Amino acid sequence: MDLKQIAKDTAKTLTSYLTYQAVRTVSNQLSETNPPLAFWLHRFSTTDKIQDGEVYIRELFKEKPDLALRIMIVREHLAQEVCDFLPEMVRTGIQQANMEHRRQHLERITQLDLSNPSRPETEQQAGSEPNSDRPSS
Amino acid sequence: MDLKQIAKDTAKTLTSYLTYQAVRTVSNQLSETNPPLAFWLHRFSTTDKIQDGEVYIRELFKEKPDLALRIMIVREHLAQEVCDFLPEMVRTGIQQANMEHRRQHLERITQLDLSNPSRPETEQQAGSEPNSDRPSS
Repeated sequence: MDLKQIAKDTAKTLTSYLTYQAVRTVSNQLSETNPPLAFWLHRFSTTDKIQDGEVYIRELFKEKPDLALRIMIVREHLAQEVCDFLPEMVRTGIQQANMEHRRQHLERITQLDLSNPSRPETEQQAGSEPNSDRPSS
Repeated sequence: MDLKQIAKDTAKTLTSYLTYQAVRTVSNQLSETNPPLAFWLHRFSTTDKIQDGEVYIRELFKEKPDLALRIMIVREHLAQEVCDFLPEMVRTGIQQANMEHRRQHLERITQLDLSNPSRPETEQQAGSEPNSDRPSS
């Protein structure tokens, strides 16, 4: 496991994602102030092109430098505002999601056991006495 | 700009990306220890399915719970090891990339100016005197 390379690749993916969020932000602003330009940006920003944030900005610079500069400023701002919260959010999120997946898995296993013919009546039929230790009162 | 929502969406994307990196890691390990299972995992992990890490793990749990548990452990480990470095890497990366885009843009503008017919000889022909203020010596 090459942790250094994984960290580098993850940072690149994160940068491209923040670029995408900057494009969305600018696009929303433009749809109020300059709808035709918002439409142009929407058509320019195909999913394919925006996969790599740097390629996207390089291409946009050739077409509309002002827009490219604006998106660059927004993504830098987003990075400043958002990045510090991510480590804790992601770590906690993964821990909780993992716990939830394990819980669901246990539930499924238990349901399988319940429908297992060797223990057919456990908690399936009300009124039966699956547990012989249970007091009769 | 809804920074809180952007932070949440970014954390989700990051979680899915770390899940993808965990799948790659486990897949690489399996290709040495259990090639048929590695092949199975590779076929199971289509790009479509892995876009949402939680959906992917839920589906995998139904097919091969042991693999799902292993990938969950690896992604939790990756989150612990990698996340703390990301804010600085992404901020610095975006600042440097932005600077580089601006530099390239300035270079392009300068080249355009040089080929502008109103100043045709500036720095294009050695020995010419485009600047009349330049001393003759």
